[in-house]
Amino acid sequence: MSRYTAPLADLRFVLHDVLEVTTTYARLPGCAEATRDVVDAVLEEAAKFAEQVLAPLNQGGDAEGCSYDKATQSVRTPKGFKEAFAKYVDGGWIGLTAAPEFGGQGLPETLGAALKEMVDSANLSWGNYPMLSHGASSALEHHGEDWQREVFLKPLVAGAWTGTMCLTEPHCGTDLGLLKTRAEPAADGSWRISGTKIFITAGEHDFVDNILHLVLARLPDAPAGVKGISLFLVPKFKVARDGTVGERNSLACGSIEHKMGIHGSVTCVMNFDGAEGWMVGQPNKGLAAMFTMMNTARLAVGLQGLGLTERAYQNALAYARERLQMRSLSGPKFPEKPADPLIVHPDVRRMLLTQKAFAEGGRALALYAYLQEDIARHSADPAERERAEALVSFLTPIVKGLLTETGIECTYHALQVFGGHGYIVENGMEQFARDARITTLYEGTTQIQAIDLLGRKVMQLQGVGLKHFLAEIGAFCARHAGDATLAEFIAPLGAAAKEWGELTLDLGKRAAANPEEMGAAAYDYLFYSGYIALAYLWARSVAAADASTQSAGFKAAKRATARFYYARILPRTQAHVAAMRSGAANLLELEEGQFG
Amino acid sequence: MSRYTAPLADLRFVLHDVLEVTTTYARLPGCAEATRDVVDAVLEEAAKFAEQVLAPLNQGGDAEGCSYDKATQSVRTPKGFKEAFAKYVDGGWIGLTAAPEFGGQGLPETLGAALKEMVDSANLSWGNYPMLSHGASSALEHHGEDWQREVFLKPLVAGAWTGTMCLTEPHCGTDLGLLKTRAEPAADGSWRISGTKIFITAGEHDFVDNILHLVLARLPDAPAGVKGISLFLVPKFKVARDGTVGERNSLACGSIEHKMGIHGSVTCVMNFDGAEGWMVGQPNKGLAAMFTMMNTARLAVGLQGLGLTERAYQNALAYARERLQMRSLSGPKFPEKPADPLIVHPDVRRMLLTQKAFAEGGRALALYAYLQEDIARHSADPAERERAEALVSFLTPIVKGLLTETGIECTYHALQVFGGHGYIVENGMEQFARDARITTLYEGTTQIQAIDLLGRKVMQLQGVGLKHFLAEIGAFCARHAGDATLAEFIAPLGAAAKEWGELTLDLGKRAAANPEEMGAAAYDYLFYSGYIALAYLWARSVAAADASTQSAGFKAAKRATARFYYARILPRTQAHVAAMRSGAANLLELEEGQFG
Repeated sequence: MSRYTAPLADLRFVLHDVLEVTTTYARLPGCAEATRDVVDAVLEEAAKFAEQVLAPLNQGGDAEGCSYDKATQSVRTPKGFKEAFAKYVDGGWIGLTAAPEFGGQGLPETLGAALKEMVDSANLSWGNYPMLSHGASSALEHHGEDWQREVFLKPLVAGAWTGTMCLTEPHCGTDLGLLKTRAEPAADGSWRISGTKIFITAGEHDFVDNILHLVLARLPDAPAGVKGISLFLVPKFKVARDGTVGERNSLACGSIEHKMGIHGSVTCVMNFDGAEGWMVGQPNKGLAAMFTMMNTARLAVGLQGLGLTERAYQNALAYARERLQMRSLSGPKFPEKPADPLIVHPDVRRMLLTQKAFAEGGRALALYAYLQEDIARHSADPAERERAEALVSFLTPIVKGLLTETGIECTYHALQVFGGHGYIVENGMEQFARDARITTLYEGTTQIQAIDLLGRKVMQLQGVGLKHFLAEIGAFCARHAGDATLAEFIAPLGAAAKEWGELTLDLGKRAAANPEEMGAAAYDYLFYSGYIALAYLWARSVAAADASTQSAGFKAAKRATARFYYARILPRTQAHVAAMRSGAANLLELEEGQFG
Repeated sequence: MSRYTAPLADLRFVLHDVLEVTTTYARLPGCAEATRDVVDAVLEEAAKFAEQVLAPLNQGGDAEGCSYDKATQSVRTPKGFKEAFAKYVDGGWIGLTAAPEFGGQGLPETLGAALKEMVDSANLSWGNYPMLSHGASSALEHHGEDWQREVFLKPLVAGAWTGTMCLTEPHCGTDLGLLKTRAEPAADGSWRISGTKIFITAGEHDFVDNILHLVLARLPDAPAGVKGISLFLVPKFKVARDGTVGERNSLACGSIEHKMGIHGSVTCVMNFDGAEGWMVGQPNKGLAAMFTMMNTARLAVGLQGLGLTERAYQNALAYARERLQMRSLSGPKFPEKPADPLIVHPDVRRMLLTQKAFAEGGRALALYAYLQEDIARHSADPAERERAEALVSFLTPIVKGLLTETGIECTYHALQVFGGHGYIVENGMEQFARDARITTLYEGTTQIQAIDLLGRKVMQLQGVGLKHFLAEIGAFCARHAGDATLAEFIAPLGAAAKEWGELTLDLGKRAAANPEEMGAAAYDYLFYSGYIALAYLWARSVAAADASTQSAGFKAAKRATARFYYARILPRTQAHVAAMRSGAANLLELEEGQFG
């Protein structure tokens, strides 16, 4: 019952008017082919695929889920999923952003992100399969040996195989230092992997014949903790150095999880029993390679939050226009109807505007971050690369943390607009809320994103990414200082940026005296930073709309939504400031035995 | 897998130390039997019932759900539900608060609320069946004719029958003025009811033989809108004026809904096809009678939010103590273990303290409201009755709105503490989140509570309830003005109360000029008011704990939790103030066609 139309107009607006991506692509080695025509053509074709192939499978996938056959240790995915994957591969989507030398189309990651938003709107569960392959591809591209890229990366990019990330074990998720899976050397240079991994997305399925597991494990003599972790390639069917695919490897899916949502995305317990694998990168340096995948995946999970926000919003908006209930407080707006549509009511508008503000603002923020990723990867200028790298590294926990949390908030609002009908399965709204709930948990919880942001990106790395970002906001404010039409945004944005810098310094001092202060402020700092980052992108969006050839209605909508954002969302920062300024003591005072 | 231990210590603390209920009961006609011994005995037995009978059925009820047999139009409830209801009836719980002349035990509603919190923690879905009977009983007790109370009320109070509320129709939920179900007079003084009702909780089930539907319908000559609605008693099996139960009435459950949660609570489409019914109260005055049920039900749904918060918290706390992951930021706290338990981490503590603050503060607020209900019902002093009635009427949308929204927030946090394990069905945490999601939808959405609070209780009724509440806070602050140990709470509480009064006046002025201003502020006003109300109850709780014979650890925990609340939750009011002060324009500016 739920609908989806790809937001092509807004995607084009963000890419062309706000970010002017093709101006950047034109000067980036390897990206010049991504002209405006190419970008628009890719967006349109991606929209069709998402709308016509993936979206219709979403509710059925939720209802049917994945099933596990104990006898064969195999997994059946929902009806149509496998065929959709074949079409995705045939359409060239799976290798859209992969390097041409490995069979990819070499298009920018920003464009891949636009595709991914649409995929996630259409069918989040299904989108996890290509997402995991993409993560595995990244790790191999950056850390694999030449023969590994030839033998393993090419089939991934071609969509002949898919990939996984095998990190979590029953006793350790966040704390990978505790992991126990072992790797023992074999005479031929390969390794024998043994251990149990849980929560393995796409660990077993029926899309393709071979599945390539990227597995974290310990060597026999490895040091304890995270400094003793190595990364291995462990395929479902053995693969020799010459690429020959051999017999079934000694690994299997032992069971699958029953989850709150993403029922079409299979979550496996994977048992490795002396399985043959190949080391990727250096011994005991596996975590660094894994973080290449992880960072890619974190931004991608941010897009999942965005995708759900967009689709839930579209459905809530349609319902608010159709459903007649009560009269407007200032008198009937549609006197000829038995009641006014929901959209006349101020609080329904508040819920819709919140979703619109996070969808469009979140899209601008996410694509901004991905553009930095493209610059970091392709620019010929080392200084520009370094700046972009610092920016994307700083923004990754914000995009992941904020867009997943607002995804949960927005799917909540969208369901709420439906009233009791939102709680009914067939209307499709509750699936969005259930699916959204995973996004603040996997690829690092919101808590981990928060510590990554404040503890690592800001404090440990001396806030280099933040400084670049604040400088950019400062330059934007200075550029528009005399622009009366933007003054309503520039003044509060400038004030917020100033406060952001000062607050960060203050937190840094406090954390230097007591490291618990970092942990006590990190969650609020993540939201605080995210809301200001969105305020910047909203101000930029208004400026870009005004300067564009968009319609008057489009410009008016951007301005009105930005006004709403500044008036009713941005003030949330003040509650976060108060919480941060209150310090760690109120969190640490209560003794463990006194909690209850 | 999920656990539950009734929070007896805190229930006793709130009832005896904070609210001193038995002092009030002693002077209320009809309540004197509720001595401290009786209260404590009831709490203990209720705890046993909730823990031992209801809690074990919760996860199974979710997994199995209710099933509908099309051939017989009958519903089967989950395994054990029917037997648990029989035990509930045998134990005298069903009629705990009903008047003795109808077979009840006549105990105060406050005690019934304590029971209900435990029932809802243990098994929210199951709790809906007695809740609906309770609502139907209230309506009959207050609006039924003598013979109706004799014939219909007694079997409800005895648990021989159960009740329902049939309001919603496919095209109208909130807007009951649109309802179409018809009632035509029969020669014997009964009526023939025809129409379709949806979302009927407990509309059909296998607990008991007869089900009494309270149905809103229109007389043939009824005026349009809400002034043309009458209330009818329509039993599943016909009941004559002398109480004789006859043949099956011409009504049936046509289907049941598949929902996000509360799978054990059946939600029926009910078709009435000339069914025999009896009018309750006066023609065209049905809405007033229905509101008696509704207000009872709204407070009760607030308890559902509280019950889920409490149980989710208990499980999150246990997990945070057991699960070892990472080291404390200030150095290992349990060096002998491979990692520290989650509870050492500041943000885990923030999530736990948020739950604890809403559970304990929410309990105090809800029971405070219920005590006003008892006073309003039983006091011999008309002025005291009037004040209590104004208070409970004012607090009902706050208790319903705030405790259900914080129930959603807290089940979110509790799941988050579990990390990825929270998303797995068998761990039980995701059920709490799914079950909680209904509570902001039924018995009036949060939006309806907000308008009831600001539009009706504050503006239309000249804020009489608010004035009493602010006066009480003022008196509390004055009483403790010189108390240095409470100064950290009294100062901000006094400031918040002052701001609450001023803000209300300001909103009143603006709404007088433009009614949309009320609708634009109502949602934020609900949360704003709720957070200050909780701040009052938290300050009272600290004062009551200090003055009590509770242990030093108990007192310290109350104080530390209150500190956390004041430092990290109460500042949320400032974001709401900013949103309210921003006015309606930013919600109304965007034209309907520009939303997307």
